[in-house]
Amino acid sequence: MAKVVYAVSMPLDGFVAGKNQSVENPLGEGGEQLHRWLRALSAWRAMHGLEQGEENVSSALFEEDDEGAIVMGRNMFGGGPGPWGDEPWTGWWGDDRPFHKPVFVLTHHPRPPLVAEGGTTFTFVTDGIESALRQARHAAGSRNVSVSGGGHVAAQYLAAGLIDEIRISLVPVLLKDGVRLFDLVQDASIRLEQTRVLEAPGVTHISYRTSLGWGHLKETRRLAHSESSMTRRSGRGL
Amino acid sequence: MAKVVYAVSMPLDGFVAGKNQSVENPLGEGGEQLHRWLRALSAWRAMHGLEQGEENVSSALFEEDDEGAIVMGRNMFGGGPGPWGDEPWTGWWGDDRPFHKPVFVLTHHPRPPLVAEGGTTFTFVTDGIESALRQARHAAGSRNVSVSGGGHVAAQYLAAGLIDEIRISLVPVLLKDGVRLFDLVQDASIRLEQTRVLEAPGVTHISYRTSLGWGHLKETRRLAHSESSMTRRSGRGL
Repeated sequence: MAKVVYAVSMPLDGFVAGKNQSVENPLGEGGEQLHRWLRALSAWRAMHGLEQGEENVSSALFEEDDEGAIVMGRNMFGGGPGPWGDEPWTGWWGDDRPFHKPVFVLTHHPRPPLVAEGGTTFTFVTDGIESALRQARHAAGSRNVSVSGGGHVAAQYLAAGLIDEIRISLVPVLLKDGVRLFDLVQDASIRLEQTRVLEAPGVTHISYRTSLGWGHLKETRRLAHSESSMTRRSGRGL
Repeated sequence: MAKVVYAVSMPLDGFVAGKNQSVENPLGEGGEQLHRWLRALSAWRAMHGLEQGEENVSSALFEEDDEGAIVMGRNMFGGGPGPWGDEPWTGWWGDDRPFHKPVFVLTHHPRPPLVAEGGTTFTFVTDGIESALRQARHAAGSRNVSVSGGGHVAAQYLAAGLIDEIRISLVPVLLKDGVRLFDLVQDASIRLEQTRVLEAPGVTHISYRTSLGWGHLKETRRLAHSESSMTRRSGRGL
């Protein structure tokens, strides 16, 4: 069955981004160390028009092609906060966007979809995380939906019990400051079950099945109920 | 070559002990979850006079017999703070202490050594972490020294560049509050190199070779120098 997956590179001290995140430095100070293992892979380099690189255990993980759609926060899509303006930002990636699938961008500011080359479409969703996920699930069909980018977006999905699997790529560095994923979900009772461990050069990939603890069951049911009645009332459906 | 090793069970959010540590609850609230994988092992259970249990990948790790001596903080040895008094605390472990090797306990309060059954001796060290480590290295000979117990003691050794290897047993729980090992060494520039990953039921064991970054090299040299001249002056040697 299709899953909702959050994959993140995490340093040993648990930060998902360093301090002082900015447009120039979206992962914050020191954050680029988190993706060193990824940028070394020949598959990643080829996808970004670069030559050479390594093949190792991480390659298999990177090439696992189980992702049908992506949900991301506006910070990951980029372009700064506020309304999009007359010449709206079209992403960090130039013409050769590396997604090749439908991407749903959470934003407070409406904007028509952006259909790019190579099968990447950006749909801008202004009515919340459940709506974005519903649209992404529909687009993904039998494949997984990835929640991508900033810890804040992932934390909202986690706290709502909407993530089925967390894939942590644990990197042997210490960022020392910034945003800690699990600090953002302090109030949620999250249960984790280790399902897979892969040792790779300079990184350990661990997957966890994720669910909310009992304390959240009632809350989740209530939410699901009000959500489905909202959907019925507004006639939006999927 | 003999190494100085710090082995610790760590939850995904990086705390080494929950909040409200106490004599009754030395790992703090929720901290007992960190050792669930360990208490399930038949080897651990046998060592503590219990029957049954499991054999799995963690068993091999637990039975790896490379430890010649232990350094621990007074909180791990127990008995509360302050002078030892007339009937001093003799440890949590009753007569059948599970160490069977020399243990060096860091304390501010002097006390004669405690020689227990089964090869466990407790030596109480009042002149600091370097002294305790020196004595433990001597006692361990060609085998490793473990730094054990509280994050605060390990953090002091880490910040001083005296730990060669950290073995993290990463447990899929969130403690949410308490003491974070790497928060205690914020000021140190610690470099980690992943050297081994073991997947086991409910836990991932990862070893990291540990050293101080360049910023610390001068400081360490200076320390080593003053330490060795101190040793010469006082004629203590090993």
